[in-house]
Amino acid sequence: MTVVRSTLPDKERRIAGDALQDTLVDLLGLSLVGKQAHWNIVGPRFRSIHLQLDEVVSAARDYADTVAERAAALGVPPDGRPETVAASFGLPGPGDGWLRDTEVVQLMVASLESTIGRLRDRIEATDKADLVTQDLFIGITRELEKQRWMFDAENWPRDE
Amino acid sequence: MTVVRSTLPDKERRIAGDALQDTLVDLLGLSLVGKQAHWNIVGPRFRSIHLQLDEVVSAARDYADTVAERAAALGVPPDGRPETVAASFGLPGPGDGWLRDTEVVQLMVASLESTIGRLRDRIEATDKADLVTQDLFIGITRELEKQRWMFDAENWPRDE
Amino acid sequence: MTVVRSTLPDKERRIAGDALQDTLVDLLGLSLVGKQAHWNIVGPRFRSIHLQLDEVVSAARDYADTVAERAAALGVPPDGRPETVAASFGLPGPGDGWLRDTEVVQLMVASLESTIGRLRDRIEATDKADLVTQDLFIGITRELEKQRWMFDAENWPRDE
Amino acid sequence: MTVVRSTLPDKERRIAGDALQDTLVDLLGLSLVGKQAHWNIVGPRFRSIHLQLDEVVSAARDYADTVAERAAALGVPPDGRPETVAASFGLPGPGDGWLRDTEVVQLMVASLESTIGRLRDRIEATDKADLVTQDLFIGITRELEKQRWMFDAENWPRDE
Amino acid sequence: MTVVRSTLPDKERRIAGDALQDTLVDLLGLSLVGKQAHWNIVGPRFRSIHLQLDEVVSAARDYADTVAERAAALGVPPDGRPETVAASFGLPGPGDGWLRDTEVVQLMVASLESTIGRLRDRIEATDKADLVTQDLFIGITRELEKQRWMFDAENWPRDE
Amino acid sequence: MTVVRSTLPDKERRIAGDALQDTLVDLLGLSLVGKQAHWNIVGPRFRSIHLQLDEVVSAARDYADTVAERAAALGVPPDGRPETVAASFGLPGPGDGWLRDTEVVQLMVASLESTIGRLRDRIEATDKADLVTQDLFIGITRELEKQRWMFDAENWPRDE
Amino acid sequence: MTVVRSTLPDKERRIAGDALQDTLVDLLGLSLVGKQAHWNIVGPRFRSIHLQLDEVVSAARDYADTVAERAAALGVPPDGRPETVAASFGLPGPGDGWLRDTEVVQLMVASLESTIGRLRDRIEATDKADLVTQDLFIGITRELEKQRWMFDAENWPRDE
Amino acid sequence: MTVVRSTLPDKERRIAGDALQDTLVDLLGLSLVGKQAHWNIVGPRFRSIHLQLDEVVSAARDYADTVAERAAALGVPPDGRPETVAASFGLPGPGDGWLRDTEVVQLMVASLESTIGRLRDRIEATDKADLVTQDLFIGITRELEKQRWMFDAENWPRDE
Amino acid sequence: MTVVRSTLPDKERRIAGDALQDTLVDLLGLSLVGKQAHWNIVGPRFRSIHLQLDEVVSAARDYADTVAERAAALGVPPDGRPETVAASFGLPGPGDGWLRDTEVVQLMVASLESTIGRLRDRIEATDKADLVTQDLFIGITRELEKQRWMFDAENWPRDE
Amino acid sequence: MTVVRSTLPDKERRIAGDALQDTLVDLLGLSLVGKQAHWNIVGPRFRSIHLQLDEVVSAARDYADTVAERAAALGVPPDGRPETVAASFGLPGPGDGWLRDTEVVQLMVASLESTIGRLRDRIEATDKADLVTQDLFIGITRELEKQRWMFDAENWPRDE
Amino acid sequence: MTVVRSTLPDKERRIAGDALQDTLVDLLGLSLVGKQAHWNIVGPRFRSIHLQLDEVVSAARDYADTVAERAAALGVPPDGRPETVAASFGLPGPGDGWLRDTEVVQLMVASLESTIGRLRDRIEATDKADLVTQDLFIGITRELEKQRWMFDAENWPRDE
Amino acid sequence: MTVVRSTLPDKERRIAGDALQDTLVDLLGLSLVGKQAHWNIVGPRFRSIHLQLDEVVSAARDYADTVAERAAALGVPPDGRPETVAASFGLPGPGDGWLRDTEVVQLMVASLESTIGRLRDRIEATDKADLVTQDLFIGITRELEKQRWMFDAENWPRDE
Repeated sequence: MTVVRSTLPDKERRIAGDALQDTLVDLLGLSLVGKQAHWNIVGPRFRSIHLQLDEVVSAARDYADTVAERAAALGVPPDGRPETVAASFGLPGPGDGWLRDTEVVQLMVASLESTIGRLRDRIEATDKADLVTQDLFIGITRELEKQRWMFDAENWPRDE
Repeated sequence: MTVVRSTLPDKERRIAGDALQDTLVDLLGLSLVGKQAHWNIVGPRFRSIHLQLDEVVSAARDYADTVAERAAALGVPPDGRPETVAASFGLPGPGDGWLRDTEVVQLMVASLESTIGRLRDRIEATDKADLVTQDLFIGITRELEKQRWMFDAENWPRDE
Repeated sequence: MTVVRSTLPDKERRIAGDALQDTLVDLLGLSLVGKQAHWNIVGPRFRSIHLQLDEVVSAARDYADTVAERAAALGVPPDGRPETVAASFGLPGPGDGWLRDTEVVQLMVASLESTIGRLRDRIEATDKADLVTQDLFIGITRELEKQRWMFDAENWPRDE
Repeated sequence: MTVVRSTLPDKERRIAGDALQDTLVDLLGLSLVGKQAHWNIVGPRFRSIHLQLDEVVSAARDYADTVAERAAALGVPPDGRPETVAASFGLPGPGDGWLRDTEVVQLMVASLESTIGRLRDRIEATDKADLVTQDLFIGITRELEKQRWMFDAENWPRDE
Repeated sequence: MTVVRSTLPDKERRIAGDALQDTLVDLLGLSLVGKQAHWNIVGPRFRSIHLQLDEVVSAARDYADTVAERAAALGVPPDGRPETVAASFGLPGPGDGWLRDTEVVQLMVASLESTIGRLRDRIEATDKADLVTQDLFIGITRELEKQRWMFDAENWPRDE
Repeated sequence: MTVVRSTLPDKERRIAGDALQDTLVDLLGLSLVGKQAHWNIVGPRFRSIHLQLDEVVSAARDYADTVAERAAALGVPPDGRPETVAASFGLPGPGDGWLRDTEVVQLMVASLESTIGRLRDRIEATDKADLVTQDLFIGITRELEKQRWMFDAENWPRDE
Repeated sequence: MTVVRSTLPDKERRIAGDALQDTLVDLLGLSLVGKQAHWNIVGPRFRSIHLQLDEVVSAARDYADTVAERAAALGVPPDGRPETVAASFGLPGPGDGWLRDTEVVQLMVASLESTIGRLRDRIEATDKADLVTQDLFIGITRELEKQRWMFDAENWPRDE
Repeated sequence: MTVVRSTLPDKERRIAGDALQDTLVDLLGLSLVGKQAHWNIVGPRFRSIHLQLDEVVSAARDYADTVAERAAALGVPPDGRPETVAASFGLPGPGDGWLRDTEVVQLMVASLESTIGRLRDRIEATDKADLVTQDLFIGITRELEKQRWMFDAENWPRDE
Repeated sequence: MTVVRSTLPDKERRIAGDALQDTLVDLLGLSLVGKQAHWNIVGPRFRSIHLQLDEVVSAARDYADTVAERAAALGVPPDGRPETVAASFGLPGPGDGWLRDTEVVQLMVASLESTIGRLRDRIEATDKADLVTQDLFIGITRELEKQRWMFDAENWPRDE
Repeated sequence: MTVVRSTLPDKERRIAGDALQDTLVDLLGLSLVGKQAHWNIVGPRFRSIHLQLDEVVSAARDYADTVAERAAALGVPPDGRPETVAASFGLPGPGDGWLRDTEVVQLMVASLESTIGRLRDRIEATDKADLVTQDLFIGITRELEKQRWMFDAENWPRDE
Repeated sequence: MTVVRSTLPDKERRIAGDALQDTLVDLLGLSLVGKQAHWNIVGPRFRSIHLQLDEVVSAARDYADTVAERAAALGVPPDGRPETVAASFGLPGPGDGWLRDTEVVQLMVASLESTIGRLRDRIEATDKADLVTQDLFIGITRELEKQRWMFDAENWPRDE
Repeated sequence: MTVVRSTLPDKERRIAGDALQDTLVDLLGLSLVGKQAHWNIVGPRFRSIHLQLDEVVSAARDYADTVAERAAALGVPPDGRPETVAASFGLPGPGDGWLRDTEVVQLMVASLESTIGRLRDRIEATDKADLVTQDLFIGITRELEKQRWMFDAENWPRDE
């Protein structure tokens, strides 16, 4: 017996649900990775990037909440438990210990770029299944592409 | 060569650093578990507990930040990466899928109780090593004991 | 002679205008029904649902305003007069007198579900006619599906 | 068996209850009519009156809520459903379609004047029955008489 | 020799002064009883009623202040000392120890009902003596009747 | 030909209108006198009374606005021009030049007392004519009696 | 014996003091005249000008306060009593009764123009005596010239 | 060598980039033209339209910022220099000197209509290239169509 | 059977619970006594001390809430009922009737001094039993010692 | 026939008007140039300077508005149309495309320096013509000199 | 080699720089002296003057910041180090230990009077050198003269 | 004769008093040194560190106030006069003139490190004397250790 009923037919619900679950893991992972860098960064640009990272974390947390509640609204229970995040998370992340500021910038460009690539695939995947979910992914992509640009602009000249 | 220097001698720094790292993992885990319940709860008390869980999550996130920055301030790089949280986290947590509201209340009482027990040990452990870190743990314990009471008061009569 | 000119050709304006007018009636009706339940609810969950209903009403009112002004912006005078709302409104609604809390939850699930079904049809209908109007419907659907889930999650176990 | 008990004896409760129910319908009707004019007004004074109408609507909605909760507090379930509003509402209202700004001003003067007249009767009717309800009507009358003056002051010279 | 002079003749001042002093004791007592329940409530509705009680306490404190300052303004020194409150307070109150949520709801209905009954007598008593004091009592009665309804609506079905 | 029409019959409108016009002059005069004292006060209690006077001025200005707009709402054009205020104002006021703090306190007690006495007469006068206007006077009286008490309490021991 | 001592020599203090006293009367008069128009205006532009007048009144009141406190700061007791304002005020003002909106606009242009002319003379007069007072007049002139322009821009075409 | 890398392939980036650059110029131009009218408008509706224009300017500036940062996020450097705006801007604009209020209304209808027409073309052009950019254009169009309606509603009867 | 379970062993819970209960009574008593003085004070320093007393009351109320919830969190039901406060309260308090300002200052110094003395004993008593409760008492002591100083500084020269 | 009349004689109005018009163009140009740099900057100091530029833009926009309204207040219609800004703007500006952070700092020092030089000339030019306008230029100069210093302090060591 | 370049010629920069440096020392000294009195004041007017002193301190700190940044903006490095303040500060200041309230008032009058005298000299000195710096001094003088008056008004009768 | 009485015995008061006085001087000195660097810093990291320094200054000022009021609360008059700060202050500070950004970072690390070392000694010294004062020092140490870390993290690689 279904607990929370869906407003979508089964197939569409499955497509949208999978895309949402994968996005949830990416965003929770991104928020943990962003905080890790926020705490461990060293170097002359410490303060500037320390603050910038908190904006990424804050955006990632808010979108994670929206994405998980969207899944629930479609009758799909979201899974954001520590073990799930660790097992499914595939974005580039930092090693342990202090992180040089230049490394952090490159890491964030890479992490965001990877998240954006996956989101663009999911935008396509949900086009037929659920325009409402797609619209949510479009909004997240816009924000993350803006964040990525800001780190990339700081990443110049590249061989520094 | 040391990156961020410490204002504590080596031994004290190690004791305080370990206690802070363990607390960081507990709090990050608690924040993920709290959100998981926030999204998956069902039952007549849905709204009331859904909101209450967000207060726990918000407290856990804020304290995690303070604890991690305290570690960094002592020259100990904190580790809050997804794999670390998943590997070290030992508090009771939910399974996947929807969660009945009564279950959620019991789960939160158990999770908070367990976190509090560990914190009280760390309060003792840091008494000699660093009064500043101890004071921080005392504050966290006060807040979590208040949150625990609120769930326990809702958990009555117990066999309901 | 046209009073407010449209930025859409005639056919598109008619399709978008009809969809907007129907949505306006649904949302105004929903706001009246939600308030009716807000005032007449009784039972142990009174306070929790009393507050939750005001969030639905507030969302319904804001969207009704946006929808009506969108119609006007397309040169179609919106109609939200009492007699029109009463005549055209077809969503499930409460009878008169006090309402038990469990009834209210079921009523809101039904009302929201019905509104969402109609909105999803209009998303399709406006896809060719006006992407701007469609985008507005997508946003409303997202919000109402979230509200529906919250009532449905409270509606469990169903035979209670 | 009574659901919500009253702090008034039967006869007084009936008098106050009837006066509150009639006022509720007037205020809900006024809020719908005010929004209708807010959306459909055209003419050089569009913006100024468009904004002024929203103040009337906002006042009408807030008082409707207070009036309905007052009825409930006296043990009388209020009725603000679409069909009741449409059936009982007797104030002057607009036809459909665009409305010239001068018309809107005259319409609002007439609608408010009519509401005020009925409220003054109810102030008298509740004088013996319930001073608390009477005091509420006095407050509403003060606000609506102020709104009426503002439209009437704009309505000059009358034959313009 | 009079300390603070009155703007009322002696007899009227005495009538108004007595009514205000009695109301002060009721409101201070209500604020203490409300807090007692706020702290000691247990049961599944803990959070919802815990919050609702703080609204009663907050209203009772604000009105107590207004009532006491009104007495002072009439040249009558108000008495809100612990011994006075304990000696004069006659509303139903809780025993010591934890309180089941359903009990709390019944207790608040009874306490508020009793306060309202006394206030309605004082509204009558001050009608000749001081319309300004009467108007203050009317306002307090309106607020407390609303609070009473909210607890009574939660108190259904009564034999639960 | 009437410019702004009244919702009151002629006789009632005249009674209410006169009472409102007289109150307007009193309040505008009070606001000017209060500011005069605010600027010219000297003595050890300068700062405390300087601030207190601004609260009187602020209350007087707000009530003057409400009173004048109430007159207009009844179709009676209010008159608050400098020459009218100077010609009709009969409350005790300061001479020119610096004012000792003790004098200011006595002056404010006298001014407020006088205003209150007149307001109490107007409360009676409007009882038959317009309950809405009466209710406004009751509110003003409450505020001014509170302000008067505060100055009178500072005026002790009187022969200081 | 001097009460409040001055930081200016006698002659300079007298020049600055006279200029400040005259400005105080102009500004208090302007604030009374502005309110008079705010309350008595009728005509299609009622609402727009009604709001605009309150901005003039608010500016005039704030500057009057600053000007009076500046006089006091220079050891010159300011005089803003009703009789002084009425006796010294020489700006164009309205007659009694309702005021057509077009009249109000012309009246405000005239009143502001006249105040500005006097202020420009005082800017010159204080140039030698006190640059601090002069700077204050410059600021007031800037604000009033902006207000004057706004009414003058509304006053077009002039023969309307 | 690319400075800021794009998350889009070359062709898509070029299409989206061109559409964004053209929109940037339109919006910057619109903000300058709107301010020009804000400063130079004269006539009886001065204040009402003066305020309304600032809402258009504020919307145009905010969207210009979003559009330019979107271009940068796609690796396309936006160009909003004075000479570029002047050279590329093709919307209807005012001549120099004062502007009659009725002219301003017509000018804004024309300017907004023209911007909207171009935006609708770009919505189509970006449909294949970049849904994220398209979604941004849809939002801008919604806002500008609302602004256009408000000026058009004020533009009635047209031959006035 | 225990209702709310404790995170402390029995003996520690009893020590902490007793200290918290006694502090609760002191703080509730202090808040009532402070308000009594707030309402009944007369004398030239009325306004200054009237405001200062509200800061004490506000602090006492907030700490009472924290202390009571701390007791509940430890599984000890707090008792703040009127009869308990009256029976257990042992701080110096005012008689009935008006209070001279100099008396109020002395009374507050004495009341606060007495509360502080008891709190310092409880800080010692809880040192072994519960560091978290001790830390709460340390914070309350800091605030009350600050308040005491402020009254003591006003209490000079003492024989005045 | 003059549209908006001036409070200045012809010659003074012309001098002040010219100075204001030139300043308007400088400030609008500065705001466009500042935004251009805000969007196109790249390099390790991206974030820090990106934010700093928005403060310059915000100041430039606010002052442009004040300057233009000052011109209007003097009866001189300001001209801030795109073509005027492009034609008259003579400050150093960026080329198209991405801008290295060090370049941006130098560019802003140069642009601000140039604007300041022109403003200092206009301060002199308006000294006889209009002290009010001069005072406005003094304030703008103070702000821009502060902004210039901040960029110049970042521009060290210069040959970096 | 110059670090921060100046927008003033050498001589002017030196004159303005000296005046700013001296003002900086006065204001920092005033802020320390004001805080010293804020902490050490005793006597019946404790609270009133304690609060008033914080307004002086807050103004002195804000102006010190503005003055130092103005110096830097002119290419003159400001010096506000403890040793400089102690060595150059020449205003009247308190001895150590508690300060009677009447003494504090006299001390502040003297300190402010002395600061004002020096500022008036610097207004003259900078008249030729830099109008922007002069304008800043004029603003500071206005504020400090207001503060001085307030203490002087409290200082009456002087022999009290 | 004692002016402000202490709640501590003589010996404890002396220990706590000395520790507080020394801390006061350190914090006031730190606030002056921090501002000096805030004004005189130059170099590419100007803005970022300029802002960071203001956070240190703001913390130092707030703690200085708390520390001084704590001393007063214990009956010990605090001494924060310019000469005392200059004479007792022993932390590393800047020379005069411009300061390179890298120097500033090193200077702040050294200054904060030194302050922290002294505070840790005082935490020990007050352990027996006054737990309330100790708790205050613990809080200050936590904040300053956080600030120190942030500068130290920016100070890497050290030989840069």
